[in-house]
Amino acid sequence: MTRVSIIGGSGYTGGELLRILLDHPEVEVKQVSSRNHLGEFVYQVHPNLRKRTQLKFCDPAQIEDADVLFLALPHGQAQHHIDEFARLAGKIVDLSADFRLHSPEDYQKWYGESHSSPEWLTKFVYGLPELHRSEMVNASYISGVGCNATATNLALLPLVRANLIETSTPIFVEIKVGSSEGGAEGNPGSHHPERANVVRTFSAFGHRHTGEVVQELGLKNVHLTMTSVDLVRGVLASAHVMTKPGVANKDLWKAYRTMANENPFVRVVKEQRGIYRVPEPKILSGSNYADLGFELDENNGHLVAMCAIDNLMKGAAGSAVQSMNLLLGLDETTGLNFPGLHPI
Amino acid sequence: MTRVSIIGGSGYTGGELLRILLDHPEVEVKQVSSRNHLGEFVYQVHPNLRKRTQLKFCDPAQIEDADVLFLALPHGQAQHHIDEFARLAGKIVDLSADFRLHSPEDYQKWYGESHSSPEWLTKFVYGLPELHRSEMVNASYISGVGCNATATNLALLPLVRANLIETSTPIFVEIKVGSSEGGAEGNPGSHHPERANVVRTFSAFGHRHTGEVVQELGLKNVHLTMTSVDLVRGVLASAHVMTKPGVANKDLWKAYRTMANENPFVRVVKEQRGIYRVPEPKILSGSNYADLGFELDENNGHLVAMCAIDNLMKGAAGSAVQSMNLLLGLDETTGLNFPGLHPI
Amino acid sequence: MTRVSIIGGSGYTGGELLRILLDHPEVEVKQVSSRNHLGEFVYQVHPNLRKRTQLKFCDPAQIEDADVLFLALPHGQAQHHIDEFARLAGKIVDLSADFRLHSPEDYQKWYGESHSSPEWLTKFVYGLPELHRSEMVNASYISGVGCNATATNLALLPLVRANLIETSTPIFVEIKVGSSEGGAEGNPGSHHPERANVVRTFSAFGHRHTGEVVQELGLKNVHLTMTSVDLVRGVLASAHVMTKPGVANKDLWKAYRTMANENPFVRVVKEQRGIYRVPEPKILSGSNYADLGFELDENNGHLVAMCAIDNLMKGAAGSAVQSMNLLLGLDETTGLNFPGLHPI
Amino acid sequence: MTRVSIIGGSGYTGGELLRILLDHPEVEVKQVSSRNHLGEFVYQVHPNLRKRTQLKFCDPAQIEDADVLFLALPHGQAQHHIDEFARLAGKIVDLSADFRLHSPEDYQKWYGESHSSPEWLTKFVYGLPELHRSEMVNASYISGVGCNATATNLALLPLVRANLIETSTPIFVEIKVGSSEGGAEGNPGSHHPERANVVRTFSAFGHRHTGEVVQELGLKNVHLTMTSVDLVRGVLASAHVMTKPGVANKDLWKAYRTMANENPFVRVVKEQRGIYRVPEPKILSGSNYADLGFELDENNGHLVAMCAIDNLMKGAAGSAVQSMNLLLGLDETTGLNFPGLHPI
Repeated sequence: MTRVSIIGGSGYTGGELLRILLDHPEVEVKQVSSRNHLGEFVYQVHPNLRKRTQLKFCDPAQIEDADVLFLALPHGQAQHHIDEFARLAGKIVDLSADFRLHSPEDYQKWYGESHSSPEWLTKFVYGLPELHRSEMVNASYISGVGCNATATNLALLPLVRANLIETSTPIFVEIKVGSSEGGAEGNPGSHHPERANVVRTFSAFGHRHTGEVVQELGLKNVHLTMTSVDLVRGVLASAHVMTKPGVANKDLWKAYRTMANENPFVRVVKEQRGIYRVPEPKILSGSNYADLGFELDENNGHLVAMCAIDNLMKGAAGSAVQSMNLLLGLDETTGLNFPGLHPI
Repeated sequence: MTRVSIIGGSGYTGGELLRILLDHPEVEVKQVSSRNHLGEFVYQVHPNLRKRTQLKFCDPAQIEDADVLFLALPHGQAQHHIDEFARLAGKIVDLSADFRLHSPEDYQKWYGESHSSPEWLTKFVYGLPELHRSEMVNASYISGVGCNATATNLALLPLVRANLIETSTPIFVEIKVGSSEGGAEGNPGSHHPERANVVRTFSAFGHRHTGEVVQELGLKNVHLTMTSVDLVRGVLASAHVMTKPGVANKDLWKAYRTMANENPFVRVVKEQRGIYRVPEPKILSGSNYADLGFELDENNGHLVAMCAIDNLMKGAAGSAVQSMNLLLGLDETTGLNFPGLHPI
Repeated sequence: MTRVSIIGGSGYTGGELLRILLDHPEVEVKQVSSRNHLGEFVYQVHPNLRKRTQLKFCDPAQIEDADVLFLALPHGQAQHHIDEFARLAGKIVDLSADFRLHSPEDYQKWYGESHSSPEWLTKFVYGLPELHRSEMVNASYISGVGCNATATNLALLPLVRANLIETSTPIFVEIKVGSSEGGAEGNPGSHHPERANVVRTFSAFGHRHTGEVVQELGLKNVHLTMTSVDLVRGVLASAHVMTKPGVANKDLWKAYRTMANENPFVRVVKEQRGIYRVPEPKILSGSNYADLGFELDENNGHLVAMCAIDNLMKGAAGSAVQSMNLLLGLDETTGLNFPGLHPI
Repeated sequence: MTRVSIIGGSGYTGGELLRILLDHPEVEVKQVSSRNHLGEFVYQVHPNLRKRTQLKFCDPAQIEDADVLFLALPHGQAQHHIDEFARLAGKIVDLSADFRLHSPEDYQKWYGESHSSPEWLTKFVYGLPELHRSEMVNASYISGVGCNATATNLALLPLVRANLIETSTPIFVEIKVGSSEGGAEGNPGSHHPERANVVRTFSAFGHRHTGEVVQELGLKNVHLTMTSVDLVRGVLASAHVMTKPGVANKDLWKAYRTMANENPFVRVVKEQRGIYRVPEPKILSGSNYADLGFELDENNGHLVAMCAIDNLMKGAAGSAVQSMNLLLGLDETTGLNFPGLHPI
């Protein structure tokens, strides 16, 4: 059994990691730390894990050697301790934003401060298997992914790979998100009477995850607009792009089918009938699937490319475990078989 | 025009008071205070009032003489300043819990501390017009009402008045409430990812509002159980009582119809068809109605008596303005004509 | 008192009309028809109106002469009876889509069938006061507005009027809508277990309301994408446009302030702090306000222009009553003073 | 591998059965029927199963021999075909209400019609393992359970077993339920604008599931009151009972701990701190756990006994698979390890 530990396990991402790893057939969770919940049972913070584990949160300083170390700290912390962490485990998967961008300049640009361990930036593989599967197999360090970046990257990836869209004209990506994206700490806007029933555009442009889209897809003219809706889990990214002249639905089908065939967690959702004709985050809670869809207006080349994910799964903990599986030479779907619920 | 001012206007009750009073044809809102939002425009805190008022929150110390003073402070504060407030206005409506109970012993029992101005307790009329209309006309000081107490009191009032139920056997009242009951300040449990989708029994027994039911209805054996549901506004109280021998549906109809005839904001909801057959808070947002209903199992005398209200209206600001109307000799419905929305 | 009657009053738009008109100080509701609910009390279908009216739904054939006739029939019906209706009243406000487009060709294009009374199309003024106030004062016939069209038209109107945006490049409008848009009749996708928690793009392009945007704003390259979210009432339209070279925030402020100053129901929402910094439909339920906002990325000219409305009010019944007020020479805000609720 | 087939697989219970059984390590799903969706892929109806199975719905007449047959038909159908079904498989688990009650008189009483195959009623074991585990091991036929009955039975079982409560005085059980309880077919009240935000008491007394509580717990004086809340999955039953004289918290703890120790899917939830102190259906979606809790008012013996479950899991498909596991001599938790999600 592979021994894994988690630094920072009391947040939503940490909880989701625990849920997956405690049932993962090839790993054993050794330790999980949390400063805020030191000494508490894991199930007191993550109530779904009651009767599943008697683990307690330990002090991060007590974390011992492990085969794989997951870092699920708030953004900006892991970079200050990465050398220590690297002494504890040969393989690290960091779920924060600290090691997603390869260039210190990009980090400065999107996070508004200089990176404290810039030499580590290029040691990390960007943690999206659909983009970097082969590198992961031989990697030691894998970064997390931004959930909105992942929804955007996967929405656009089949199109970019198959060279079907104009990349010089602006690409507008409208992203609707649930409240768990904001993390486990409350704020005035997350108070239920204020947060329920919202359609609230909290970031019209300039969202940090844009940096991951620019880096990973090589797109320059991409604009993310973030809107909160009344949902706990889930992201839907809708990218408005213009196809190249002559691109037809059959070309798109081919590109999307290829993507789905090559990636176990990618599905194409494009039905002519029934209720669920397009990608929807509703049915993805707890699942690692990324559902992709597209709608082309053949009159003018306007293409709406959609991707729905569970932000805590494919957008965070799910991709991280999938990455770990690759890192360990396991089938990448191991431990990630929950398909989601209907209805929910 | 009657000049009214509000001490403590930045909470949800204060906001609802402002919404009503700014459109009330017989009053003029002079001042509204808030320590936390000093100097801010009212509409920055209560965004529904944008373009309706240019009032700013002032310091409570700046509040001047008025004809009527509304106190909408957090519980436990008004009692310390009631003498000062009484110098500012001859008529006071306090929306907190400070002056609802007439006996210092009861206050001690339910609030766990002694009252700082016990001599004031008997000067206040309990602020539910359906119980104390005639006293209000000549009163100077009117207390607020607990929202859950109001739902319970109105659910049981027709039955107690008409002497239709056993009062020695236990009366269990199950109360389902929305999140605005908790006030405008957040807490870990009100964070949207934790508060959405709940059916959370936060008080199985011993809720403070029980004291108001005991006092107002003279019931001894009454038990309130509070459960949060996924709703922002609204309360539904369902009282499980046993009828006296021989009580039939026609007796109940008579008692309820009398109640509705005598009280402009009481409606009886008991339909044989359609979607809305029983009282529901869903359609009461913003309305001052109390919808009453009953279902009698004639096989055994089990009666479910229901009352639905908007906790911020009939359960707080609406009853307060209705009380003020009586205090001022106005038609008690003045300014309270919004009927609620459907659908919502 | 002006005598008004409503043909087709059992749907959501008809219910909202009734709510407004029953409290309108200058009109008297004479009759309201509904084939499906013939003989039922209005409050059995619209439960918020209990204790507000004893009106019953009559047969449409029984509708008598009135000063103003509101038509709130399902789309495609009013055009077949418009001559009869015109004999009943000199002034008609139709809330359906039948008389919004002035050209029979446009009607054919967007509704997929030929119009049965094309000669009537040009007799109707398009029912958005912000666009056609002066024409309405002398009009006899006013059409309704599409709710999504209204959100889009108002989002873009200040920009088009002030000539601040590029109109040759594509304008992508992402519109998020609540479930009441679909009307009072259920369908498999509106069943609560399937409709709750959705972020469901039901129309990626080609929505019928596009025709109203093209007609009213003269835009050719505008693309509406419709997504259902978990909300009952409300629309948020976010238009992604590129500003003309040199356009800065101050130019936008000027255009929006002008719009708000000239229109009593238009507000500009653009705050630096607080929870409600941008337009949100959440706080608009029951209100006739259209909240406008904008966010400009000065680095590249990407402008997100937003408009939030209540689809049943400003997007339907509210605009219709506002239009009637103008038609009757009344203050256009009469009867439309409900400001909306917070929280909700 | 055990070959299982499902008759009637297009409803919510059938979908949940499929989700579990397709991942169950010891069974193979051979066939699944649906008249309404004949020939459609299973994933077109249950979109969470896309990429998990290529099964199509077949005609019920095409169902072949199997080791275990699950019947997931609407209530009232299986009883007419039970002889045929019994020829197809030696072991049957029926999820409908047809074979839950052992006495034809009880069936007549609660379902208002005579049973068409009364001789079969006593051949079925009532399908709640917590009550009938040992019988199931040797059974051939197992009935389903009512979801509300299950929540009530499990809430009261520890108390009845340990003889801690008065059973002659009335027991009032308030049950709050999500919309999936109503099944996959819509009705006017399930239309999203009408069903969202509800606290709707649709059955004050006389609910059919009461019969299962009377039969299984031997209680005579038990009253179920059903209220819909805004939730898709989940049931919370709160039973108001009076303890016998002298019963204290320690007695209750002992009874509940015994229950949890003897049953792998029973958990006791009673915390002094944190957000999740009492049983809540919120965190149980997809899980087979039954979370039990209790709150005793020691002043008067009022005990609130709570049970939260996912109605489609422990209240339907989960109990059915747990029963099948026992029937087949497997560990009863096999295939039922999903713990639920947090947050959700």
